[in-house]
Amino acid sequence: MRISEPTLLINKSKVEKNIDKMIGRAKKCDTIFRPHFKTHQSIAIGEVFREKGVDKITVSSVAMAEFFAEAGWGDITIAFPLNLAELDKIYALAKKINLNILVDSLYSINFLSKYITHSLGVFIKIDIGYHRCGLDFDNEDIMKIIDTINKHKHLFFCGFLGHAGQNYNARGKHEIEQNVLRAIEQFEDLRKKFPGALISWGDTPSCSISENLGYFDELRPGNFVYYDVMQYHIGSCDMEEIAVTVLCPVVSVNVSRSELVIYGGSVHLSKEFIAADNNFKLFGYVTRFENNKCGKPLPGTYVSSLSQEHGIIKMPQELIRTFNPGDIIGILPIHSCLSANLLKNNMIIR
Amino acid sequence: MRISEPTLLINKSKVEKNIDKMIGRAKKCDTIFRPHFKTHQSIAIGEVFREKGVDKITVSSVAMAEFFAEAGWGDITIAFPLNLAELDKIYALAKKINLNILVDSLYSINFLSKYITHSLGVFIKIDIGYHRCGLDFDNEDIMKIIDTINKHKHLFFCGFLGHAGQNYNARGKHEIEQNVLRAIEQFEDLRKKFPGALISWGDTPSCSISENLGYFDELRPGNFVYYDVMQYHIGSCDMEEIAVTVLCPVVSVNVSRSELVIYGGSVHLSKEFIAADNNFKLFGYVTRFENNKCGKPLPGTYVSSLSQEHGIIKMPQELIRTFNPGDIIGILPIHSCLSANLLKNNMIIR
Repeated sequence: MRISEPTLLINKSKVEKNIDKMIGRAKKCDTIFRPHFKTHQSIAIGEVFREKGVDKITVSSVAMAEFFAEAGWGDITIAFPLNLAELDKIYALAKKINLNILVDSLYSINFLSKYITHSLGVFIKIDIGYHRCGLDFDNEDIMKIIDTINKHKHLFFCGFLGHAGQNYNARGKHEIEQNVLRAIEQFEDLRKKFPGALISWGDTPSCSISENLGYFDELRPGNFVYYDVMQYHIGSCDMEEIAVTVLCPVVSVNVSRSELVIYGGSVHLSKEFIAADNNFKLFGYVTRFENNKCGKPLPGTYVSSLSQEHGIIKMPQELIRTFNPGDIIGILPIHSCLSANLLKNNMIIR
Repeated sequence: MRISEPTLLINKSKVEKNIDKMIGRAKKCDTIFRPHFKTHQSIAIGEVFREKGVDKITVSSVAMAEFFAEAGWGDITIAFPLNLAELDKIYALAKKINLNILVDSLYSINFLSKYITHSLGVFIKIDIGYHRCGLDFDNEDIMKIIDTINKHKHLFFCGFLGHAGQNYNARGKHEIEQNVLRAIEQFEDLRKKFPGALISWGDTPSCSISENLGYFDELRPGNFVYYDVMQYHIGSCDMEEIAVTVLCPVVSVNVSRSELVIYGGSVHLSKEFIAADNNFKLFGYVTRFENNKCGKPLPGTYVSSLSQEHGIIKMPQELIRTFNPGDIIGILPIHSCLSANLLKNNMIIR
């Protein structure tokens, strides 16, 4: 393996383990498993899921739905509020595959229902505490949206969909479990009122560690396929489960400052970081890359800042002298979804 | 103009004004103008420079040098520490065009000088206070590197190159001018010792407003072609000079929270933000987009958070009711280099 520029290295055996584990959790709960493909956006990683029996997927844009439909996926939910500016593309897709979309307003469902001519499944997005989008559990428009759907011969009401994004700010199992239990309690009214409706749930932290997933009818985690440093900090995974590394050439070694400069910046890793006191910022952990393999994270070593193409790695003095320009090192990214998006055309799976 | 997904809109007349102004500043100082093309990475924007007589450019990666060489640019400096893992590509480029590279270590120049078989210009990177890479002004290796260059028939010593990245943390003209004057003072020794060497300087804040650029032999600003909200906050530009907007569809209107949800997230705008007290984060300003034109930034309105594909816009109650799903709005990005990189395949110039 000759690496000359920032390259996404995917550890296939870790990916398989992560998928197997999540499939196992979904089976145990007897829920539909509809993994989110926005993290990897990769046909090849999609095939790993397919070989394990997965045939329903989630995506976060119409473009991604088109991409995976083209690759033979026939049952796709676009878990993103309906974009009325892309209705033509949605209609074209609905002709070809089983397509589900998401609405969170009367305005959007009314607009949609005027023109749709092919079967389309509709989830109603519920705000389960993340406050990004979705209707409150008790919003009166929910009933009106369902009425509109039911009156239309091409629209099918699938159920309610929530994303507990607040779990990305949680730390540890207890806090995540509290978020899950609070949502379950709030879903109860809707469950009673609409007994046939699916309740679809999805975020990697809760899907990885909650013991109360049995309540839900569908799970849509995405990040778990690779995990990352953020998920490690949340408590969703062990460091060894992180299946993705960004390989970067060392271009400069500054012994007096105990810093390496790498070819690997915000256009490769993204600007996502974890902040702590005293202005500390963590843009990634660092591993050696030897014999085509990444080692464990180096102690006291981390990516401390990123420019467009440059990364700065802080490292103890006793380690710095073991590196030279031209060496390749591995970065465990903070947010694998963003790094994978930036490097989707420069990726090795092995 | 029909916009259905996040799209980079470039205002060509503003781009021309920004370029004209910077060419004027360089001419007044009688310095070489070698603009950095990493911001736009666009053949079409490159042509705007070419039409105005620019024939020397700067890039930040070998891949970018290859891209612009392919488009007919024949004099390129790769202003990034020499990546020894890409020497084969550098040699191939050096055969075709006038290529200059950057070194900041004896290790790299020794490695390079063993194999190079075609003319290559070499700048020595000096750390002028940003502490990202480069040698200190008084580092003894500078003399040794120049000796190595001078002994090699294919290597040519161009001079010293600095990047005052600290100006991105400065606010206002006074602070920037202090950084420039400090660097000039420190360059004096090198200027006396190596009278024929160019002193190459480049960052958009100082190139936009310093009155002491005449000291330098070459200017390499890049961001000025578009500017952005960060540059506005630094004091490098007026709001009206920002030549780039990311057009995004509105997908959800939350009246009670005074928020819009847009299709436009960190994979379109990047995670770059400006932070202030009380946990305030600014990911971009917001304009209307009507009759194919962006208006002025809306008062009290800004992008407050970004997920992968979602953006949240906070907006006063009196404005929120004037928007519906399906409307298109414009975002003035925090860091145009990163947004332009993410949207380089989805860009309109007009």
